Amino acid sequence: MSIGALEAQGREVREAATALGQASDEARRAVLLHVADRLEESSDELLAINADDVVAYDEPGAGVDRLTLTSARVNAMADALREIANHPDPLFEVVDQSVRPNGLRIERLRVPLGVIGVVYENRPNVTSDVAGLCVRSGNAAYLRGSSTAFATNQFIVSLWHEALEKEGLPAAGVSLVQDSSHETAAAFMQLTDVLDCLIPRGGPSLIAAMREHARVPYVLDGDGNCHVFVDASADLDNAVAIVRNAKTSRPGVCNAAETVLVHRMIAADFLPALSAAMPEVELRGDDATRQYLPNATPASEEDYQREFLDLILAVKVVDSLDEAIAHVARYGTGHSEAILTTDQANAEAWVKRVDAAAVVVNASTRFVDGGELGLGGEVGISTQKLHARGPMGLRELTCLKWVVRGEGQIR
Amino acid sequence: MSIGALEAQGREVREAATALGQASDEARRAVLLHVADRLEESSDELLAINADDVVAYDEPGAGVDRLTLTSARVNAMADALREIANHPDPLFEVVDQSVRPNGLRIERLRVPLGVIGVVYENRPNVTSDVAGLCVRSGNAAYLRGSSTAFATNQFIVSLWHEALEKEGLPAAGVSLVQDSSHETAAAFMQLTDVLDCLIPRGGPSLIAAMREHARVPYVLDGDGNCHVFVDASADLDNAVAIVRNAKTSRPGVCNAAETVLVHRMIAADFLPALSAAMPEVELRGDDATRQYLPNATPASEEDYQREFLDLILAVKVVDSLDEAIAHVARYGTGHSEAILTTDQANAEAWVKRVDAAAVVVNASTRFVDGGELGLGGEVGISTQKLHARGPMGLRELTCLKWVVRGEGQIR
Repeated sequence: MSIGALEAQGREVREAATALGQASDEARRAVLLHVADRLEESSDELLAINADDVVAYDEPGAGVDRLTLTSARVNAMADALREIANHPDPLFEVVDQSVRPNGLRIERLRVPLGVIGVVYENRPNVTSDVAGLCVRSGNAAYLRGSSTAFATNQFIVSLWHEALEKEGLPAAGVSLVQDSSHETAAAFMQLTDVLDCLIPRGGPSLIAAMREHARVPYVLDGDGNCHVFVDASADLDNAVAIVRNAKTSRPGVCNAAETVLVHRMIAADFLPALSAAMPEVELRGDDATRQYLPNATPASEEDYQREFLDLILAVKVVDSLDEAIAHVARYGTGHSEAILTTDQANAEAWVKRVDAAAVVVNASTRFVDGGELGLGGEVGISTQKLHARGPMGLRELTCLKWVVRGEGQIR
Repeated sequence: MSIGALEAQGREVREAATALGQASDEARRAVLLHVADRLEESSDELLAINADDVVAYDEPGAGVDRLTLTSARVNAMADALREIANHPDPLFEVVDQSVRPNGLRIERLRVPLGVIGVVYENRPNVTSDVAGLCVRSGNAAYLRGSSTAFATNQFIVSLWHEALEKEGLPAAGVSLVQDSSHETAAAFMQLTDVLDCLIPRGGPSLIAAMREHARVPYVLDGDGNCHVFVDASADLDNAVAIVRNAKTSRPGVCNAAETVLVHRMIAADFLPALSAAMPEVELRGDDATRQYLPNATPASEEDYQREFLDLILAVKVVDSLDEAIAHVARYGTGHSEAILTTDQANAEAWVKRVDAAAVVVNASTRFVDGGELGLGGEVGISTQKLHARGPMGLRELTCLKWVVRGEGQIR
């Protein structure tokens, strides 16, 4: 695909976005429900195409699992679309209204962003999930998936084309970039006349490429170096259960805990109980931690900086709430930060003073997720502050347009 | 100023932002009111310093007027700060609340963005206005003004330092980059560990530099190629008064009208009346326009594309609402787009279908301004869709933090 072909496709996506932004709630819902049905009906065909992509895949690591579809995963994709379809329409809500002294009536109206570009890696379910969130919110989805999933993605997108056309909407409302070269990747990130918002879903090299090449506004789905602070007054059993859940329920995701900070007053009770409750997890602690857990690995500076995304947890004993907040300010990535405490003042200080997309009190960091927070799905989790912070659902794919109504006012 | 010195200053600004984000409503207000008083008290000194900057200024064009302060302008700066000070506190509002089926209590809390970077040109009032909006909303202001205004800006910033320290807040909460070389400009736009949001206020070359160099999230204060569509049913006298106001009340600003689109049914009445009402404006029209206004200059394609920012208005006769909307979609910059009509259905079609930061019905485009819309001031007018669209006031300098409160929930 040449740059010229990319730009020509982009113009079609742009036009389709205008039609989607005018489409009725009913038509947008119907598209999602149709694709959900068709995914299930054509599951065998989809799995066969995906099997070819999997056979051709020759990179080591967890990539092959992310690439592979199963019947259960196809059904989960369909169910996710039904959930998004049944979520209330995010469009055309009047967010606030006022009348100015000169009689002008002012309101802000919720409208689609337009064209959402998403750059992502292996997982084919992203193709369907993102298309669903975009179409439901009246946006066009312009997708640049991985070359390794190309045939799978192409088939999924063909179901979207069918469903859009069935509702009289342009097929280009869900479009897939037709190659995955580095050249088109950079060109894609520079389609300033096409993309209203670009969302990267991937690792550090994708984020670096975005910062280098992107010329369109973007929202970063960044790393989650998430902390749990176990305060002196924490309920011991709750604290052990929460840290265990935050670390082990799904270690490879961005809302998993990577470091536990333990108040010195509770360390002698908490640390041995935690270690006993999750023997499968390697603990890496500072000197104070290792007084209570002599078998823990010594923690390096780097251990406090990184996302392990694995069954490894960094541990640090702190003297105070202030020290815990300072540690999070230094090492945190602004994703999800939890305090476990029975002291209401400390809980509120944490909520107010910790600078992160989500602050959590007495619960697992794993709840910071679009589905769990009631958004009906998510296109990513923003760790920046502009536009959207935390999970991005349907509402985060909209913007507010000013409407000014007068009767001849001049200034 | 070396890049290292810039980074060191940046770290101080970052720390100051933390303190400002925790400062009370009362302290933040007091800082603004103190600066307002001190601006007036030290007006003579400020005007003398500014006079030196003006003497040293040797570029042609309107720059010298923008650079020059007068007593009236200093008083206006002080009054603007008092207005922002008296605007309600934008912080710590709970925007929405819900309880999940598992008992988690979810809310979103309005908090400051952190450090706002602003790159701007001559006008020294921007120094004070931006600092006022940032401090009022609990943010630090990191300012890169023009070298031509350096001494003036430095003096204004010194008043902010005095006021911040008087309230026990760090002086670095309002900081000025100490040189204006291109090298530090590019480095400033790449301070990813310091800046939460970067706002350029300037012309096309600054926007191009932002797209090229910026590595931090930014909101573009873009061009305004604004249209007024005079529909067939428009009230003739109102329409003439509004177009005249939109074009001539301040031709050099971004919310001034640049093109008037006239429905063919009303053209024979409207165009001669408009021409008679604003003889000082050069009209540039298409062939149909020139049937009614034989003395109008023929309009080129470029005339429909550009911001004149002058007493020149492009004119085009259109056959329908659809043609007007299509013209705006093609040539508009997404700023402010007005329809003048007595047909309610056409007004609502315009509101829904025109894609712009502000759509205006039966009023002048000149009302699209933070002060006029009740924001108490503005740091710029965004023509992009992410984060803020249209005038950016105090609320647009905040973001929403998720707060999740539980009693031991795990996932």
